[in-house]
Amino acid sequence: MTDTVQVERHDDIVIVSIHRTEKRNALRQEDWIAVGDAIEALGDDADLRCIILRGAGEEAFCAGADITNFEAERSNRRKVKAYERATDRAFLAVRNSRLPVIAMIHGFCIGGGFELALAADLRLSGESGRFGVPAKNIGLFLGYHLVQYLVDAGGRAVAAEILLEGRIIAADEAVSKNLLTRVVPDADLEEEVMKAARRIADGAPLSHRFHRAALARLADPRPLSRVELEAQFDYADSEDYMSGYNAFKVREKPKFQGR
Amino acid sequence: MTDTVQVERHDDIVIVSIHRTEKRNALRQEDWIAVGDAIEALGDDADLRCIILRGAGEEAFCAGADITNFEAERSNRRKVKAYERATDRAFLAVRNSRLPVIAMIHGFCIGGGFELALAADLRLSGESGRFGVPAKNIGLFLGYHLVQYLVDAGGRAVAAEILLEGRIIAADEAVSKNLLTRVVPDADLEEEVMKAARRIADGAPLSHRFHRAALARLADPRPLSRVELEAQFDYADSEDYMSGYNAFKVREKPKFQGR
Amino acid sequence: MTDTVQVERHDDIVIVSIHRTEKRNALRQEDWIAVGDAIEALGDDADLRCIILRGAGEEAFCAGADITNFEAERSNRRKVKAYERATDRAFLAVRNSRLPVIAMIHGFCIGGGFELALAADLRLSGESGRFGVPAKNIGLFLGYHLVQYLVDAGGRAVAAEILLEGRIIAADEAVSKNLLTRVVPDADLEEEVMKAARRIADGAPLSHRFHRAALARLADPRPLSRVELEAQFDYADSEDYMSGYNAFKVREKPKFQGR
Repeated sequence: MTDTVQVERHDDIVIVSIHRTEKRNALRQEDWIAVGDAIEALGDDADLRCIILRGAGEEAFCAGADITNFEAERSNRRKVKAYERATDRAFLAVRNSRLPVIAMIHGFCIGGGFELALAADLRLSGESGRFGVPAKNIGLFLGYHLVQYLVDAGGRAVAAEILLEGRIIAADEAVSKNLLTRVVPDADLEEEVMKAARRIADGAPLSHRFHRAALARLADPRPLSRVELEAQFDYADSEDYMSGYNAFKVREKPKFQGR
Repeated sequence: MTDTVQVERHDDIVIVSIHRTEKRNALRQEDWIAVGDAIEALGDDADLRCIILRGAGEEAFCAGADITNFEAERSNRRKVKAYERATDRAFLAVRNSRLPVIAMIHGFCIGGGFELALAADLRLSGESGRFGVPAKNIGLFLGYHLVQYLVDAGGRAVAAEILLEGRIIAADEAVSKNLLTRVVPDADLEEEVMKAARRIADGAPLSHRFHRAALARLADPRPLSRVELEAQFDYADSEDYMSGYNAFKVREKPKFQGR
Repeated sequence: MTDTVQVERHDDIVIVSIHRTEKRNALRQEDWIAVGDAIEALGDDADLRCIILRGAGEEAFCAGADITNFEAERSNRRKVKAYERATDRAFLAVRNSRLPVIAMIHGFCIGGGFELALAADLRLSGESGRFGVPAKNIGLFLGYHLVQYLVDAGGRAVAAEILLEGRIIAADEAVSKNLLTRVVPDADLEEEVMKAARRIADGAPLSHRFHRAALARLADPRPLSRVELEAQFDYADSEDYMSGYNAFKVREKPKFQGR
């Protein structure tokens, strides 16, 4: 099939890299499927605590869809629907992963590549990061949920700007619009991302799961059920809560088990 | 009636100017009606692709309601309701225009003037821009949808600050709160706005229409219908999508038709 | 009981201070109850127009829960539920107060202390402000509404970062993420907060009440009823609206009565 996606483990942190450097890591349909496959599989691994998603090399995170495959993959409605099933699966694998996901961004992060980063929980970028959604230049529509990803990070007005102007903006401007978590010099990016991943991986998995589920649930304004409200206290019955407190008392770092 | 509103065409871009420079472009009831009329009429013009809304001169975008007409227009509940019908129609004409709208801001952008700018898709300001909603100083209420415009740009906490403190803030602070798209030196504002308008006007009209409708639709959290979900792929049947791709292949600029 | 909470009136502005400086103003269950009691009682005082909430001293606003009381107060589900009833009542007393609330922040503003600040309408911080929610370090869950407070200020992506990384961030970073209203040098904080409180206290109480209620109501996407839409014009019948206009005409400062 494709060897576009490579997976590298560092203890309880895993780095997923997109390798199509000759195309600025732009993806074909089969590559989107491979990304979805990889992220889904890792979510089932009980030994992992955090996923880092990056582009290989330092020129691009992902330049979006590889347009050279356009005739084969996207030249009519039927093909477009099949293509977007593949891209959506990748976006949703990231968004709904059992594990927190950090996007680590060098250079181009455009179109579907930007959306992939927006699907992640955190977006750390080097100063080389370049962001934009040029859909309007080719007459494409972004699906509703991809528009929502922009709103979730930057708010409605920023989403309107990104979609209507279609400008490519630098990392500094993107972070000022809340589209990124933070920006560091490219030379420091890898270390900064590993630190963030370590903070996440050292946290209680049940806390991360509850907080990420709460953020998703709060997008639905219907009142919380009694069962949901009661579940807010489930941590009190967990082993990790007790060991977290005991470690705190003796100023040690707790080792959480996720139960 | 009123010659407050002037319209100037530049090919497929149109500039709508508010001319009451002797009043910092503050508006009477008849002027609000004229603004609504002008924006509505332009939205029906098939040759246009983008509206720029500005105040005449460089002292003010619009200082809001002309309070000197208070006795005649706003001194009791009946008058207030008629007055707000006129202002709301102007806000909604901008918000719901068939065309993207850019607010081009020099100087005072206060009260109803600020809301008019917030109703637009983009807000580009010179460094002279001054923003605020002093409703609390006179005992006014902003209607729900105007409160929502503030939330749409800056989020709930920023909206609370603007309404409760009623401070007049400079462009730099406003952009840091995401209330503006960007700020440039006053001398560069016109050129920067024309560039943004050109980017929008050169984009596929169907893309703009879908993305703007999606942003409005996503404010309603009810699940998308199958018809709505299917419409996400309508671009695949458009002539513009094909010409957009063909132009991309040969590295030319597409000429979109809006179909 | 507890003398943790002290109240100091300055005309129509009241300063509520949390006094546990030996614990960086971290709170026990009884202290949370005292905070809720104090804020609730002040909300019923017709002579007041604005509440300032601060930590005593300049080392901390509030470092959150006093963990040394953990065994007695939070070591099982039953205790946790009783404890969170006390904390929630404090958060909701601030959020739902009849009066606007300003959080005035020096130093540590962590966990429940940060949430208390987020429950307020405005957050003014000195440069010494330090912010974070380290719940994941001990295996706690933040309740849904506390997650929502983060979203209300910074948006969903910022909330995810704060909860997942659990980093302690400085005031400058917090304001860039819209988690704070503004940051000033510590030496200027008291004066800046008093100015903001004065602006609020001088505003029409009915305007503040409507705008704050509207911000809460707009979190519910159901359509506004005709009664709610009509209430947008209630100001037109108020004495304060007339006196606000009359004061404006003669360039004097109105004295609002709240009716």
